[in-house]
Amino acid sequence: MQTLWDNRYAQRTRRMKSSAIRELLKLTEQPDVISFAGGLPAPEVFPYEEFREACNVVLKTHGPVALQYGTTEGYLPLRQMIARHTRRFGIEVTEENIMITSGSQKALDLLGKIFINEGDQVLVESPTYLGAMQAWNIYGAEYVTVPSDENGLVTDELEAALRAGVKFIYVLPNFQNPTGVTIPLERRLRLVELADRYGVPIIEDDPYGQLRFEGSHIPSIVVLDEKLHPQNDGCYTGNVIYLSTFSKTLAPGIRLAWVIAPPEVIRKLVVAKQGTDLNTAVFNQIVAYEVAHGGFLNKHIEHICSVYHERRDVMLDALEEHMPAGVKWTHPNGGLFLWTTLPDGMNTVELFKEAVEQKVAYVPGASFHPCGGGENTMRLNFSYASPEMINEGISRLARVIRRRMK
Amino acid sequence: MQTLWDNRYAQRTRRMKSSAIRELLKLTEQPDVISFAGGLPAPEVFPYEEFREACNVVLKTHGPVALQYGTTEGYLPLRQMIARHTRRFGIEVTEENIMITSGSQKALDLLGKIFINEGDQVLVESPTYLGAMQAWNIYGAEYVTVPSDENGLVTDELEAALRAGVKFIYVLPNFQNPTGVTIPLERRLRLVELADRYGVPIIEDDPYGQLRFEGSHIPSIVVLDEKLHPQNDGCYTGNVIYLSTFSKTLAPGIRLAWVIAPPEVIRKLVVAKQGTDLNTAVFNQIVAYEVAHGGFLNKHIEHICSVYHERRDVMLDALEEHMPAGVKWTHPNGGLFLWTTLPDGMNTVELFKEAVEQKVAYVPGASFHPCGGGENTMRLNFSYASPEMINEGISRLARVIRRRMK
Repeated sequence: MQTLWDNRYAQRTRRMKSSAIRELLKLTEQPDVISFAGGLPAPEVFPYEEFREACNVVLKTHGPVALQYGTTEGYLPLRQMIARHTRRFGIEVTEENIMITSGSQKALDLLGKIFINEGDQVLVESPTYLGAMQAWNIYGAEYVTVPSDENGLVTDELEAALRAGVKFIYVLPNFQNPTGVTIPLERRLRLVELADRYGVPIIEDDPYGQLRFEGSHIPSIVVLDEKLHPQNDGCYTGNVIYLSTFSKTLAPGIRLAWVIAPPEVIRKLVVAKQGTDLNTAVFNQIVAYEVAHGGFLNKHIEHICSVYHERRDVMLDALEEHMPAGVKWTHPNGGLFLWTTLPDGMNTVELFKEAVEQKVAYVPGASFHPCGGGENTMRLNFSYASPEMINEGISRLARVIRRRMK
Repeated sequence: MQTLWDNRYAQRTRRMKSSAIRELLKLTEQPDVISFAGGLPAPEVFPYEEFREACNVVLKTHGPVALQYGTTEGYLPLRQMIARHTRRFGIEVTEENIMITSGSQKALDLLGKIFINEGDQVLVESPTYLGAMQAWNIYGAEYVTVPSDENGLVTDELEAALRAGVKFIYVLPNFQNPTGVTIPLERRLRLVELADRYGVPIIEDDPYGQLRFEGSHIPSIVVLDEKLHPQNDGCYTGNVIYLSTFSKTLAPGIRLAWVIAPPEVIRKLVVAKQGTDLNTAVFNQIVAYEVAHGGFLNKHIEHICSVYHERRDVMLDALEEHMPAGVKWTHPNGGLFLWTTLPDGMNTVELFKEAVEQKVAYVPGASFHPCGGGENTMRLNFSYASPEMINEGISRLARVIRRRMK
């Protein structure tokens, strides 16, 4: 039935599909389903007591600032703390390089808003983060994909894609969502060099980089890029826009993330952000600052890593134990996800209903492929369910897959 | 100097001006300036102790939900509380009619996103809220204005504007930002009737409606509209999208507002919102619910009204005492602002620098006029400064004006 609203929506709204995946995922909300579908941190690692103390301190000593409107850029001491933290990784940034956003999704939206014209090509890894496509489709983005393997983005195929003429490159170099794989140093260097040669900016999305529980830290794209570009008073002025977040290290329920970019890009983002939400909740920013500063965050991240490390091991062991031959999976050194590939010809969307009937859920991999493919893949989250549930869930999932393979 | 970013921005970013007003307002941040420029609530009325208690309760008893990701629609008990509260004003709404946003500015952005095609005409009062234009300019909105007088929108001039073909009507019927005036019942009825006849939706922005300190409550546009439209199981399905917020009744620092709209519009807004911020901070939503429910909010609003009532009276008295003949101002019955008109030929942008030198600030009225005009007007905020500062500030401002009038 045509309603009186139907003809009023903007053209861009017609590009906005209520994603099939969203409908599927509603099925996973039954309490007895073991869900590997979400990207949720373990609630067991949230620092409740530290938040409680911080709220008390903030409301007693910073109340009038915390409950008032704030600047669009974000709370200065928090931006300065992020700048200090970032400089430890070998990149010169000041608070002029930093804007706070209400989660990284908000930063993705603002980047789409200021950069994407209808029909612009965005270069992404295939598969890539679903939420970035959700943010950018509405602005009319189209996608050029470069495949990824167990070492992430296949940089040998990058140059051909760059020649297609793209607006920017979007990558998640650490423990990628959805595959869990990490781009090694050589490929990062190659990526930075090619982007520079073709004059194409890079958006580096790094929500999980701090959650490494195996192997050594690899320098960020933004750090490598800085070596190629001259300094300007300790202020980063390069070719990369870097995103990170407190959602995976403190808690997603406070919706706090940040963008690092050249000051001229930050200024555009600030004007765009002002029109969309005036400012990010000051209360949340001061509370996060109170919780995070003084060394707590680093210790807390170690704790999170030990919990996720165990859960990843349990999931890898369970996959090894239960999965039939022909099923493959990635071995992430950190983060929240791993990626499972079933034999060719299987379809994880078709399998989904049966899986949920057997009380286990995942995200079908096709949804992460902007240009098709991945029908036989799935994303599994190992951060949320307890070790016991992980083992039981993988056993159920293996049963469903085995039944289909017959 | 052309930088490597300049050619990369989207077309829409070129419409995004760093507003002159924003630059001016930076001048008002000196601590010894008495500023009537911002739209800030009085920090003296923030319920610090109630927030502190609520944070403690929420983190002790709802921690795992409060710190986790949540639904895009918003925290269900909060939406149900808002529905109950709204039904008291005589409109049938359910939680299906309600979406929580990170401040009303976020709702304005999402409405622009789903409704405005480049070149679409939006019908606004002149003057109107600056932030709505900031949200919508980037989507390519253009404006048809209808003048307002001491009774707000002049509905006699509405029909001609509606014949121009507009996407929607945007009004702030209560204690309007910037003028402080309120649209009386007869004009509201006329507005609803004309909008219905021309099939044009209304966006009713009502951040201040609860802050009435004189006169009687006037039914909202959405309530009047409902009488024209058939009911559907207690769910609102009419022609109006209604916005309100906790920013002026609890605190802006938690960034919480809501949209009331027909469920089909809410569903579009939810998909759009998901791409921009996934969800509004669950922690803030549960804390606000804890603070507001059980009758506290109503009592607290009475307290806020008594404080703002006094400040408005002090400002009106000070204007009466200090302003030279030929200066006029509105007499708002609530809200945060009043509107001052200087004699023809004076220019409040030109006056601004001198005012700041004399340590007093306001917002020049021209910024609220999408199609020009208002050069001799200014917006004065009476909620933020203390009564003593209001009197002193108006005396300084009168001196500056008098000097120019000579």
